[in-house]
Amino acid sequence: MKRRDFFKSFSSIALLGALPSALKAKNQKAEYNWKMVTTWPKNFPGLGTGAQYLADSINKLSGGRIKVTVYGAGELVPAFEIFDAVSNGVAELGHGSAYYWKGKNDTFQFFSTVPFGMTANEMNSWLYKGGGMELWEQAYSDFNLLPMAAGNTGVQMGGWFNKEINSLSDLKGLKMRIPGLGGEVLKRAGGTPVNLPGGELFTALKTGTIDATEWVSPYNDLAFGLHKAAKFYYYPGWHEPGTTLECFVNKDKYLELPEDLRSILLGASKMANLDMLCEMISRNNEALQILQDKHKVDIRPYPDEVLNELYEISKNVVKELSSSSDFAKEVYNSYSSFQEKTRNWNNISLKSYLNIKK
Amino acid sequence: MKRRDFFKSFSSIALLGALPSALKAKNQKAEYNWKMVTTWPKNFPGLGTGAQYLADSINKLSGGRIKVTVYGAGELVPAFEIFDAVSNGVAELGHGSAYYWKGKNDTFQFFSTVPFGMTANEMNSWLYKGGGMELWEQAYSDFNLLPMAAGNTGVQMGGWFNKEINSLSDLKGLKMRIPGLGGEVLKRAGGTPVNLPGGELFTALKTGTIDATEWVSPYNDLAFGLHKAAKFYYYPGWHEPGTTLECFVNKDKYLELPEDLRSILLGASKMANLDMLCEMISRNNEALQILQDKHKVDIRPYPDEVLNELYEISKNVVKELSSSSDFAKEVYNSYSSFQEKTRNWNNISLKSYLNIKK
Repeated sequence: MKRRDFFKSFSSIALLGALPSALKAKNQKAEYNWKMVTTWPKNFPGLGTGAQYLADSINKLSGGRIKVTVYGAGELVPAFEIFDAVSNGVAELGHGSAYYWKGKNDTFQFFSTVPFGMTANEMNSWLYKGGGMELWEQAYSDFNLLPMAAGNTGVQMGGWFNKEINSLSDLKGLKMRIPGLGGEVLKRAGGTPVNLPGGELFTALKTGTIDATEWVSPYNDLAFGLHKAAKFYYYPGWHEPGTTLECFVNKDKYLELPEDLRSILLGASKMANLDMLCEMISRNNEALQILQDKHKVDIRPYPDEVLNELYEISKNVVKELSSSSDFAKEVYNSYSSFQEKTRNWNNISLKSYLNIKK
Repeated sequence: MKRRDFFKSFSSIALLGALPSALKAKNQKAEYNWKMVTTWPKNFPGLGTGAQYLADSINKLSGGRIKVTVYGAGELVPAFEIFDAVSNGVAELGHGSAYYWKGKNDTFQFFSTVPFGMTANEMNSWLYKGGGMELWEQAYSDFNLLPMAAGNTGVQMGGWFNKEINSLSDLKGLKMRIPGLGGEVLKRAGGTPVNLPGGELFTALKTGTIDATEWVSPYNDLAFGLHKAAKFYYYPGWHEPGTTLECFVNKDKYLELPEDLRSILLGASKMANLDMLCEMISRNNEALQILQDKHKVDIRPYPDEVLNELYEISKNVVKELSSSSDFAKEVYNSYSSFQEKTRNWNNISLKSYLNIKK
């Protein structure tokens, strides 16, 4: 057992960098003290911890030459002001998701997620291999920002409800917290979308101010105790099938970096991208088990009829986005043609494999 | 259009590192000239190019302090001798897949793929978050190697056949190129598994030496022209649902690195892991379209009856692996309990989403 213990600790050493001092690189003084402002509370599960993972990775890979300090929402600037703050050089880095900035440009939502859009792997393939990243860079260039994909939630859940959804008519008049394009889709289906910050969801649901809410998935939803405020937990999250998280950097600051530190920044964002998805998958596994076994939550699929109707509405909503400008059309065409091709391949690979009865 | 052109080139600059010399970091002399030996022909699509991407990333992130030169199979050592070569310090890095070394220890196959095992995202979640990586490190520690996950093929295809597979009886006597555990499963189903190097598949299939072969997926299979040698292309690849590619490093050489270069090595492997999956997905999309539209390939699902039987046999074959040692049992238990939990979550998230009729 000794050898195994040794290698267990070897593994920890490799991952945590807790090395004997003789082996350490010379402790270089930080050449760049950078700030990362975020839209999440500091170390918020999955998302805030993902921002911290990215900052830590940049620190480690650069041997301390870039020291990134993470600020939770409101610590340096409010959550929804980080885009402007980094654009103006108040901070060097920002961590959020592109759909938060739709006020700047509706098209940004394609770089985050759209209803019935691409899954995590599809999004990453589009961004890195299908021209998506270049379009995103163009989109942010007006704001003196360079974007990077820095995480993904995977397919989210459909939400928590205090009434059963058996048919389309159950959506009529439904007051649900569901922001963005998903909310627009619900509205066209007869519902009443509202937006509330995460911290208010439990009380709003418990007191009947809202009939339903979506949030993220079991890991995050369990932390908020939403199972104590709603009867039914519906799936899948048709409105957020694989939300991309972002890190953007002030371009002037980026251009001040030497080439190797630029590569480290871009590289660390890819590490963070993969890491967050893995974190979400493994934590959702555990949380789902707790919701099912301990809290006996009533977990249900949306009826096909409802999903089909929401899909038809979503197609129109997403397509309307493309009519606002030539650039919006270019992004929409790139996104939707990639989605179609990748879905074609997924049908005979991943989907077919997951559908084997067992 | 000027601005957009500028940012198109900005993007290329960022990715390729072709910067004005004034901005370049001091061109540091390589402190470590390392060799990477591989099981693939140099720049073999997806796999060899994945090894090259990893080497390039290490070079770039380290600002040239580590210079990694990639050797194709046979250039420095034969494909299946790279494990020993890196173990003995003939080269510092090796790039392959763990199931190639089952002669050392059958258990290694869990770190690559097993029939009806985990998908790419599930594997990565197990490795990085579920204890898999630590077990893999233990497994390779006897050989003076530290493993890293460095790529994934995604769900492969079932293979090319010259006869229809309508029922189990069609597998009896079927001579199919299918190595490893998949081959063992076919054998127990009444078939005759054979192993042949990739380069011989086309001729063997064309001349009737074999009745069927699996290889990888549309991207790789199209390159070999297998559609000109077989009538039917079956899916899904039950025997390789998400094969992990690896990079391993000689441990003495690893321990000679300063802390930041160790982090760069581990970080670059994560970048390569994500990049290969994205490359496979986007290239398979394109190749599938060519096979369908241009070559009119007859693409078919395995019948449920056949998949169900292969699944039952596979469960036994994989479980038998676990009886060879305490360590094998530990790996099997970790792998299969993670797979069960993640499948539970996938059923209501990714699978449910992909199954929406549209």
